[in-house]
Amino acid sequence: MENIYMDTGATTKPYKEVVDFAMEYLTDKWHNPSALYSKAAQVKADVEKSRKIVADFINAKPEEIVFNSGSTEGNNHVIRGFDDITNGKKATIYTTPIEHKSILRAVENPCLHSQTEYISIDKYGLVDLDALEKQLKGKKSTFLVSVMAANNEVGSINKLQRIAEIVHKHNGIFHTDATQLLPHYKMNVEELGVDLLTGSSHKLGGLKGTGFLYIRDGINLSPLLFGEQESGSRGGTENVMGIIAMAKAIELTKAQMENRSMFMTIKRNYLIKKLEWLGCKLNGVFMHRLPNNVNVTLPAGVSGESLVYMLDLDGIFISTGSACNSKLVEPSHVLKSMGLSDDEANRSVRFTLSEDITEEQIDYVVDCVEKAIRLLTME
Amino acid sequence: MENIYMDTGATTKPYKEVVDFAMEYLTDKWHNPSALYSKAAQVKADVEKSRKIVADFINAKPEEIVFNSGSTEGNNHVIRGFDDITNGKKATIYTTPIEHKSILRAVENPCLHSQTEYISIDKYGLVDLDALEKQLKGKKSTFLVSVMAANNEVGSINKLQRIAEIVHKHNGIFHTDATQLLPHYKMNVEELGVDLLTGSSHKLGGLKGTGFLYIRDGINLSPLLFGEQESGSRGGTENVMGIIAMAKAIELTKAQMENRSMFMTIKRNYLIKKLEWLGCKLNGVFMHRLPNNVNVTLPAGVSGESLVYMLDLDGIFISTGSACNSKLVEPSHVLKSMGLSDDEANRSVRFTLSEDITEEQIDYVVDCVEKAIRLLTME
Repeated sequence: MENIYMDTGATTKPYKEVVDFAMEYLTDKWHNPSALYSKAAQVKADVEKSRKIVADFINAKPEEIVFNSGSTEGNNHVIRGFDDITNGKKATIYTTPIEHKSILRAVENPCLHSQTEYISIDKYGLVDLDALEKQLKGKKSTFLVSVMAANNEVGSINKLQRIAEIVHKHNGIFHTDATQLLPHYKMNVEELGVDLLTGSSHKLGGLKGTGFLYIRDGINLSPLLFGEQESGSRGGTENVMGIIAMAKAIELTKAQMENRSMFMTIKRNYLIKKLEWLGCKLNGVFMHRLPNNVNVTLPAGVSGESLVYMLDLDGIFISTGSACNSKLVEPSHVLKSMGLSDDEANRSVRFTLSEDITEEQIDYVVDCVEKAIRLLTME
Repeated sequence: MENIYMDTGATTKPYKEVVDFAMEYLTDKWHNPSALYSKAAQVKADVEKSRKIVADFINAKPEEIVFNSGSTEGNNHVIRGFDDITNGKKATIYTTPIEHKSILRAVENPCLHSQTEYISIDKYGLVDLDALEKQLKGKKSTFLVSVMAANNEVGSINKLQRIAEIVHKHNGIFHTDATQLLPHYKMNVEELGVDLLTGSSHKLGGLKGTGFLYIRDGINLSPLLFGEQESGSRGGTENVMGIIAMAKAIELTKAQMENRSMFMTIKRNYLIKKLEWLGCKLNGVFMHRLPNNVNVTLPAGVSGESLVYMLDLDGIFISTGSACNSKLVEPSHVLKSMGLSDDEANRSVRFTLSEDITEEQIDYVVDCVEKAIRLLTME
């Protein structure tokens, strides 16, 4: 049997159409878009066309999109950029304990002058809206709220519109890391009320090393990479191939999104049911869950790491924890914040399905999981 | 006649071998190197092999190399990373007024607590060593000196070893932005005494959006992109294709470097002579100059911008100023710092030769320049 890739939360295979399209930017259109001659101007025009596509995808204006090297840069840009513009004023950054490490590490930077406060989450990995409301009540000083759109480990999708309402009622700025949600749901920054949004290309069929940050018109964010490009918002020669590949991947994603999300939700639920029959326990919510995400705690005595290695031998690729940093031995900070014990967290694994997954493949995967559990729990 | 590309200082065409080699990382080896399964481990191994190649290139240790999105990120990482680790202490950053804008804009960030002092440069664009010695004399507090290895506009190559000696005598840290020098000269961080070195891939036949920062063992630099990858020094899923392409481009560059630099120096000098016959004046030094760089001030009445546009019609691509930001209308900060007037700076252009330039092509270029000058100075 072909390998079965169940780690799309970590990265996706670039679309064939994207690869074909991008090639031209290595062999012919490799000129520096900032140069004056005609060949460079064509490249520049392609970059700007891509900016329009990315902007349209989230209902933003092209001038609100800043191209960068990916979500980690976007998230760091938001945290440091907010801290820099509020320098000298009293400022607070509110975030959850289950954000991606690029946010959590960034707010731990001892050189920030803003203080950080954590927002309560419930056992499903969702922001507790009442607690947030209480936390922000009477808030006078400048603040930023950074909450991920969907969690990368357990796939829980936050009520962004409600969070935005609460944040704006108290005059704060609302940032969402949309890395995981963008490939699956149509996001509209106007309807949602998002002020800053982080996006990544390689999670939706584009290339690694490219992403974007949406900065709502009127929000003054200090740069993280000072320089001349991107109207001074982000320096560095534009990664042209990465940018046009991201726009192409977004076009393809957008066209298939609705059908694909429905299809994957069915497959996802099928996998969840079968794993539950094996004694696995689902982490996160069932509704309001990423269509590709299945995160379960395995039966007693079966470590997630062992299962990953055993399935690897069967040609099945899954992950423990967030898969962006599977090599860490510590139990997942997300699962622990949701109330799981160290042992339960270490027994958890994440399956993130590809769009072309079949029921036959899922049956095979579940057979392999069953076999592995049997082996690992034998006396 | 084929187009003649004379803007290698802005970006280079990726080597064909690099493109062929990199393709595999879009179609087959696209997995996230941080994942646990075998396919990802192979990708991780390729990233580490690349790190060894990059390290060897400058005689560093693999663990001293941090992969990033390019020189602008590297330069910003150095400035902000130094400022962050010295937070609370009195600290100074010394740099020249002719650095790349990614350094100049970064030190202008009002949120830095370090103060910035500028190092004098002479009319050739070289650091004035005596002035530097005097400036640092008796210096007690922590400091960083950031001086580019070779200037991107006029190609002047600094005496890095001498600068390092002066900096270390006074217990400072020495950073060099080696973006322009790396493609042409073998740099050895041990011999040169460099503590931090910025490198870029797309200036030496690799891809845009990738670079590296050398951080000497023992130097504690705060991250700019917080996260889990690169041992915590730089977060973000590794741009695998960009990284392995950079290593491949470095291998090819290294193998050809010596012969190519000699060959290009001859062609460069030929172009300089012919342009001088047309009444152009060379900017920068003749010796200690990048082998691909020719920067001249055109005769009175001929603007650099006009020449760029006219040569474009002849299929010749050159740049005004630094070409990384040719669209700026202000006269070059480099040329002005070297003592040129606004008018002289606006009359200047940069030719940066490709490795396969021929004498015949140079003759054609000079003919076109002569024709353009005649047209532009007609009453």
